[in-house]
Amino acid sequence: MPEPNVEYHEVRFLPDNIAVEIPHGNTILQAAQKANVYVNSVCGGDGICGKCRVLLKQGEVRSRPTTLLSRQEILQNYVLACESIVIGDVVVEVPEESELDRSTILVGEEAERFTSHAGLLRGEPYPPDPLVKKLFLKLEPPTVENNLADHERIYQAVKQQTGISNMQTGYAVLRQIPSVLRKSNWEVTVTVGSRAETTELVQVEPGDQSGTNYAVAIDVGTTTVVAHLIDLADSRTVDADATYNSQMKHGEDYIHRIMYATAGDGSVDELRKLIVNDINSLIALLVERNNINLTDINAAICAGNTAMTHFLLGLDPEHIRREPYIPSANFVPPLRAAQVGIAINGRGLLYVLPSVAAYVGSDITAGAMFIRLDKSDDLCLFIDVGTNGEVVLGNKDWIICCSASAGPAFEGSGVKYGMRAARGAIERFQIDKNNEPQYETIGDIPPRGICGSGLLDTIAALFEAGILDRTGRLQADPDNKRIQNTDGVLEYVLVRQENAGIDDDIIITQNDITNLLRSKAAIYAAISILVESMGIDIKDVQHIYLAGGFGNYLDIHHAITIGMLPDLPPERIEFVGNTAVSGAKAALLSTSAFRAVEEISRTMTYFDLMGNPKYMDEFISANFIPHTDIEKFPSVAKMVSRT
Amino acid sequence: MPEPNVEYHEVRFLPDNIAVEIPHGNTILQAAQKANVYVNSVCGGDGICGKCRVLLKQGEVRSRPTTLLSRQEILQNYVLACESIVIGDVVVEVPEESELDRSTILVGEEAERFTSHAGLLRGEPYPPDPLVKKLFLKLEPPTVENNLADHERIYQAVKQQTGISNMQTGYAVLRQIPSVLRKSNWEVTVTVGSRAETTELVQVEPGDQSGTNYAVAIDVGTTTVVAHLIDLADSRTVDADATYNSQMKHGEDYIHRIMYATAGDGSVDELRKLIVNDINSLIALLVERNNINLTDINAAICAGNTAMTHFLLGLDPEHIRREPYIPSANFVPPLRAAQVGIAINGRGLLYVLPSVAAYVGSDITAGAMFIRLDKSDDLCLFIDVGTNGEVVLGNKDWIICCSASAGPAFEGSGVKYGMRAARGAIERFQIDKNNEPQYETIGDIPPRGICGSGLLDTIAALFEAGILDRTGRLQADPDNKRIQNTDGVLEYVLVRQENAGIDDDIIITQNDITNLLRSKAAIYAAISILVESMGIDIKDVQHIYLAGGFGNYLDIHHAITIGMLPDLPPERIEFVGNTAVSGAKAALLSTSAFRAVEEISRTMTYFDLMGNPKYMDEFISANFIPHTDIEKFPSVAKMVSRT
Repeated sequence: MPEPNVEYHEVRFLPDNIAVEIPHGNTILQAAQKANVYVNSVCGGDGICGKCRVLLKQGEVRSRPTTLLSRQEILQNYVLACESIVIGDVVVEVPEESELDRSTILVGEEAERFTSHAGLLRGEPYPPDPLVKKLFLKLEPPTVENNLADHERIYQAVKQQTGISNMQTGYAVLRQIPSVLRKSNWEVTVTVGSRAETTELVQVEPGDQSGTNYAVAIDVGTTTVVAHLIDLADSRTVDADATYNSQMKHGEDYIHRIMYATAGDGSVDELRKLIVNDINSLIALLVERNNINLTDINAAICAGNTAMTHFLLGLDPEHIRREPYIPSANFVPPLRAAQVGIAINGRGLLYVLPSVAAYVGSDITAGAMFIRLDKSDDLCLFIDVGTNGEVVLGNKDWIICCSASAGPAFEGSGVKYGMRAARGAIERFQIDKNNEPQYETIGDIPPRGICGSGLLDTIAALFEAGILDRTGRLQADPDNKRIQNTDGVLEYVLVRQENAGIDDDIIITQNDITNLLRSKAAIYAAISILVESMGIDIKDVQHIYLAGGFGNYLDIHHAITIGMLPDLPPERIEFVGNTAVSGAKAALLSTSAFRAVEEISRTMTYFDLMGNPKYMDEFISANFIPHTDIEKFPSVAKMVSRT
Repeated sequence: MPEPNVEYHEVRFLPDNIAVEIPHGNTILQAAQKANVYVNSVCGGDGICGKCRVLLKQGEVRSRPTTLLSRQEILQNYVLACESIVIGDVVVEVPEESELDRSTILVGEEAERFTSHAGLLRGEPYPPDPLVKKLFLKLEPPTVENNLADHERIYQAVKQQTGISNMQTGYAVLRQIPSVLRKSNWEVTVTVGSRAETTELVQVEPGDQSGTNYAVAIDVGTTTVVAHLIDLADSRTVDADATYNSQMKHGEDYIHRIMYATAGDGSVDELRKLIVNDINSLIALLVERNNINLTDINAAICAGNTAMTHFLLGLDPEHIRREPYIPSANFVPPLRAAQVGIAINGRGLLYVLPSVAAYVGSDITAGAMFIRLDKSDDLCLFIDVGTNGEVVLGNKDWIICCSASAGPAFEGSGVKYGMRAARGAIERFQIDKNNEPQYETIGDIPPRGICGSGLLDTIAALFEAGILDRTGRLQADPDNKRIQNTDGVLEYVLVRQENAGIDDDIIITQNDITNLLRSKAAIYAAISILVESMGIDIKDVQHIYLAGGFGNYLDIHHAITIGMLPDLPPERIEFVGNTAVSGAKAALLSTSAFRAVEEISRTMTYFDLMGNPKYMDEFISANFIPHTDIEKFPSVAKMVSRT
């Protein structure tokens, strides 16, 4: 309700034509958040990232001068939403590239590819033994001689069929048992779920219902939420879908969201509701599409970084961002999903996979389990590139890990025309012999931006073509019309406006390149520190597994060329896609896999990069292409010497 | 709300002056139940017991002729409440002896006596190791090096202090941890409670709160509910109290209550609420009297017969009373007390001790543990006389049990002037050399009735005085004015009206004596069958423990004289009082004692007397004083031969 004595103005957002009333003095970004209109905002409203530019179509705003908008943009009437104070009614247009396109995440297909692929990576698969089982029991009707109580009669039958003996039962189910048993003539299906040291009798249904046993595996990402619907009865992935994390309106990275929730206007519960709603929408979609009921889903399992699992559970995340960086909990006992607000069967269980530390979450432990790092005789390196870059080094005897503030550049944020791996994103890029760009987009439509794998290709291509030097600076070249100078800063035009799916050239700026190099440098430095701290030569690493949301594929050679990955024989390196959801799914399908994740979380040693004085040196050295010390990259050195 | 077209009448109850409107055609008993006025009703309204007589002071009722009222009573305008159909407004008076006297249960004192006494019975006491513990933890504040998550920091400290490693935490507590830890500067008191295979972190409080740790132990009896307030921090009984079970208005025995709940007008939930209210009232009283808060009580433990624990938990009791007599559950997992409605700390736990079968409940398993039957080298017999008479035979190697339908005669029901062990009850009785009765009453006030121990004394005294013959028949004797003939049936006047605390002679009738002998015969027959079934001679039994609500004491010699107990040397026989509450308390104070009850419940073999063809023969033989075969009672035979 409007307060008295405060002037209110209308802010109308195009193209959605959504209007909202806000008090005089608020920003356009605040209006967008209130109106639930998504405006890209990497820095969460700090006026640093420049991603929240919107087109002022009508009315006036008060704003400070900014270097984050080009002269042309200013002339076109672009403003930064976070820096624009509303002093009258306005109409603004959210540019297409700043909007979320919820229809285009290619997750189902992608995750499937990597699941089947990575499932073959090493050794025996985990035996099918789901966390939640459905058992059809034909009970012996009681007699004076066989006078076991109803509840214990079920326990006895479960033990006979499965060997499980440490059962527990909740109050609600306990009360239902006698009538269900008698109504069903002693033939029932029980759902039993693993709960720490015990197994819970989750549900008792009449008749044989054991033919299907649905559950969902969820990757709770900072940017994207991915859900797979699984039938545990036959270990089959029934369907998958994804959506963007609605918390993004309160910051693209989780540090900003923690600040919003704990020090800003927001609350942890507000953020919990946003992510729970996202998950519930996904589940509702999967359920509808596959013609089943919410009550048919007996379990959900989640993997995510530590901040995201805190938000999901409504746990206080404040101490994650403050030294000494302490989570509320790394190990969360199985809960009833309904307690958290997740809409599946009211008695269904929610498993949140365990994390290791504030900056190494269960997306990493699930991933490490999924690639069988903990079972490997060989030394393995597992790298997950997201907002942070987590690096895990180890084998069956020991595991260490660290987290580098890589920034979200390879997820398309902090890059002017960066975007996620969605329809219209440039996912492959090269420069041909005529010095002309060649590219492929997701969905084969005119390009609207460029995703992680495309950015990686672009840096490598520009470097190989001599347009970028080893320090990462674009080189002026009057013969190359694609290298242009705007306000004294060089930029490279990837796609001319006439070929683009947006109303602009798609360019990569010097600033974008700097951001991308910082990202890859952070990852490479983390790898170096971990390897060095263990007294190992990088050549001893037999396998590198690269995970993350780059896109459908990733060019390993290019990752080496730019110096993100060490210069090892390419056959040792594998892109494994979204291992968070694959790992979560594996843990749901096999209790041994779940236990393996727990064991990994317990034994993994967290290595604090920030406290390591060498890290900054390594980071600076890695800010070159591929590195200040090119001897570390013989294959790149050979290529450079050829040109 | 009154239905249309149904005539309603007012029934007013004196002396409480409570009025209620009931439909034309209802009975006075139904009116009393609706008005929440207690009217004694052993048979639950079947018109059999004759205990529900009330005085019709005004108005008229329609009723059938009955033999359960004497001619004099009919002339005085007494009616049976259950047989009196209301056809107009009436005023009735509930006679004093038919009311509940809630102020007079001598439980605290009595239970204390037997607790301290029986605690010394045998062997080592169980080590103090309560089911719910409070631990003061001085946690190390986290650092970058020691970056354990908050939740796991608590687990680690609990493990260091107690060795407990299989912890679990509920969602609500999980969420509170970070703020409590920081507010209290990392010094907290945690409450941990045993939960099946795991230990739950029930509560985290700032500072050192471990000085006290309150819990309640409750004997949920069919007639009486007893609660002890215990401080687990120093194994001390702080206070105790008792009240009548309000379910009595729906039947004095639990079979009638099951019928009311499952086949009559009532519901299981209605009966659950009644008993939960009784327990809550007791707890509220204890809390108030000892100046503590409900939230200070972290656990409740209950023992009771199987039907009562079903009512308490709202479990379906229907199949208890129908062949093959199957409980919903014998083993009930620890629950949150609030789930059942018990008002203690909202996170506090409720332990319901395990039962064995429909007719052998946790009052018996708790009692068997309490007397250390399961630890005994010697053969022991444990007999609990209540509405049923449960008999347990065994030692450390094996235990068998059975339940005899003894009837509630020794609890004062089914006996014309029988009453519970409350103020004014005759608790000792003898006949002196002048053939005149001598008695003592509880509270040293004029007698109002006679309780279990007094009834047992009376039978023995009448037999020893030759007034009762061995078949249990009163002998006419013109010289003895106390033996009188009313309507052709003999009765014995224990107390003349002028000496009584009620407006009548206190008599024992031939019918009363028959009921009491049937009770004792049922118990003796059960003992005989158990002993015989194991191929044992009764002389091999080294200890007999007699439990039950007889009163403050019980004359062992008289129990042998009338043939309730076998004729063993009296030093082998001990009256141990209310072992249900003592056992529940011991289980709460020591996890080993709790586990011992579980083990007893698992291993005890239930012996079905009804299915045993010899039981009826044994029962008929035991209907004599002391028995048809007096050779089985040499000490009684010697006494008889002396007279």
